[in-house]
Amino acid sequence: MIGILVNDRVKAGKQAINELYNVGYYGRPKGDTLELTLIEAAYLHYKKKLEIQIDDRSLSFEEFFTEASKRQQYFDLKYIVYKDLRERGFYVQPSVTDFRVYPRGGHPGKTPAKFFVHVISERIPLSLKELRMSLEAAHNVHKTMVLAIVDEESDITFYEIRKVEPAGSVESIEQAVQGKRGRSTFLEDRVVVWNSDFSSSLHAAGFYGHPLDADRLQLSLVESGYLLKKGILEVADMSGTSSLGFSEFAAKASVIESEFMLKYMVYENLRDRGLVPKTGFKFGSHFRVYLDFRSVDKLPHSEYLVHSIAEEYEFMLPVMSRAVRLANSVRKRMIYAVYDNVHCAYIDIGRIKM
Amino acid sequence: MIGILVNDRVKAGKQAINELYNVGYYGRPKGDTLELTLIEAAYLHYKKKLEIQIDDRSLSFEEFFTEASKRQQYFDLKYIVYKDLRERGFYVQPSVTDFRVYPRGGHPGKTPAKFFVHVISERIPLSLKELRMSLEAAHNVHKTMVLAIVDEESDITFYEIRKVEPAGSVESIEQAVQGKRGRSTFLEDRVVVWNSDFSSSLHAAGFYGHPLDADRLQLSLVESGYLLKKGILEVADMSGTSSLGFSEFAAKASVIESEFMLKYMVYENLRDRGLVPKTGFKFGSHFRVYLDFRSVDKLPHSEYLVHSIAEEYEFMLPVMSRAVRLANSVRKRMIYAVYDNVHCAYIDIGRIKM
Repeated sequence: MIGILVNDRVKAGKQAINELYNVGYYGRPKGDTLELTLIEAAYLHYKKKLEIQIDDRSLSFEEFFTEASKRQQYFDLKYIVYKDLRERGFYVQPSVTDFRVYPRGGHPGKTPAKFFVHVISERIPLSLKELRMSLEAAHNVHKTMVLAIVDEESDITFYEIRKVEPAGSVESIEQAVQGKRGRSTFLEDRVVVWNSDFSSSLHAAGFYGHPLDADRLQLSLVESGYLLKKGILEVADMSGTSSLGFSEFAAKASVIESEFMLKYMVYENLRDRGLVPKTGFKFGSHFRVYLDFRSVDKLPHSEYLVHSIAEEYEFMLPVMSRAVRLANSVRKRMIYAVYDNVHCAYIDIGRIKM
Repeated sequence: MIGILVNDRVKAGKQAINELYNVGYYGRPKGDTLELTLIEAAYLHYKKKLEIQIDDRSLSFEEFFTEASKRQQYFDLKYIVYKDLRERGFYVQPSVTDFRVYPRGGHPGKTPAKFFVHVISERIPLSLKELRMSLEAAHNVHKTMVLAIVDEESDITFYEIRKVEPAGSVESIEQAVQGKRGRSTFLEDRVVVWNSDFSSSLHAAGFYGHPLDADRLQLSLVESGYLLKKGILEVADMSGTSSLGFSEFAAKASVIESEFMLKYMVYENLRDRGLVPKTGFKFGSHFRVYLDFRSVDKLPHSEYLVHSIAEEYEFMLPVMSRAVRLANSVRKRMIYAVYDNVHCAYIDIGRIKM
């Protein structure tokens, strides 16, 4: 079988439609011609099912591969992923998102494609904007969005990207404390509640803070901000003379932690959804989140790690890879939260085996 | 027992030497006076063993704690760590590094201190320079350097910092390939070796590259650079006309990956030490490292994750925490490598339970 290299396509005759398309769904028939992408053609060359010619001369695999690399950006990366998917029995067609991949047992004409696969090098930063656009596009046509990340040694890791809406059932702190209010002091970079009863209520009802000792509770900045905004906590500065409003508090907190508001808006949203977020420091994320908190004594497993990111965020893929891997190693989902001044969107990124 | 708050010390009388120093090694006797730090005094106040006065007036715990927070930076953080160590049975004395801590069963006058403990908030970046200076200081007096990192919810994680000298026993690639040389093509962001025999030797002898298929090998940029520098590999550009020298290659690689030389110098050092570094992408680090590589078929467990950092690096502690946690969850040590234009130093950071 002979194909002719024309620009970024390889064109083969009618026989190819029978032997390559009808059998393996390679290429797209256009009348009596089968049009193959450079990637499909390279794979068929490697499988010795296609000879590729330019000016009546046959190209070796090395020649064609090098030539294709000149004609298509990231040709080698995409080839690696295409070959991997094909060799594991998937039918693959080109698409605006690199590849449309059919579910196991499915093929063009029989079933719709299931996955939109995006191929990316670990070295290229991925903007959140781009990720969300691709996710919307896949979502709108009921496809699963998959990122295939190729590392420097050409190993592929597949990630499934999903939108999620976390929901919990913890009663609101206003209800839980039944009108009680308490006072606290803003020390260097945390807040201490001095009253023993009030400390206990906050800790027991919503897992707020960390006991300094049996009588006193230390609150983190986001926790203090939330309780202050809900009108439950009074926060004094170290001089003890003035009590802070939320915006004063937020300004002070933002000096200590420049990302304070970025974290706070997601913290508030998670709490308002009935979830219990606590610091995710040990996991390198902003929050670990309990979906089903009942009591401090019977603490459930925290199921999410949530990291709050700005709309203009760019994923560094080695960093994302580490975050997802760590989350999975402790049986949690890695979720990125984006607050856009109105809503909070949650994006779940997890490894999948394809 | 009464102590008087004077500047950043609390001073108590002779009785205190008997009841606090001789019994629990609190404070430092100076003649007939026992001098306590603010932290020691707060802890003794909490334990109801000390009343603290200023101008003949006794301070409540809240008053003293707030006052101490005004007088000493990070008072609350340091108090939390001091309390934690004391309550787990360690004798603790102040030192230039926050605390000197005695080994279990030891105390001042009986045994030398074992640990130099540095207390730091998760929010404060830690410069590599500072870390190395502290490590040298601890090393010179045979102490173990410990970082006590306090997170926003006042949980403490202890890290032990050590210098290490990784060593392996893989024979050099020059010996392994016995004078063979091969050629390759620099594609977009990786290099392909086309010759089947040479591909197999490189992969088998030193676990270089990743097979593109049974005949061809893909090499990463650091691998290609190393083999090129050793005179084993010829690297052509895509036009196929010119063969690159190491510095041309490094310049090209640095355009693709701005940190190329930072990674390369550590890669070369690890290889020259007889170790086998491969990409650590899946772990979010530059390299995973095999200490005892024998063959590709019987691949051992890789024992280190190595991340190459510049001399002016600043550790973001949530990021470091994630790296160490992930390394430990896959039974590896997390090691930071610093190349200073002459030597490569390796710093092992691991969690310890105190």
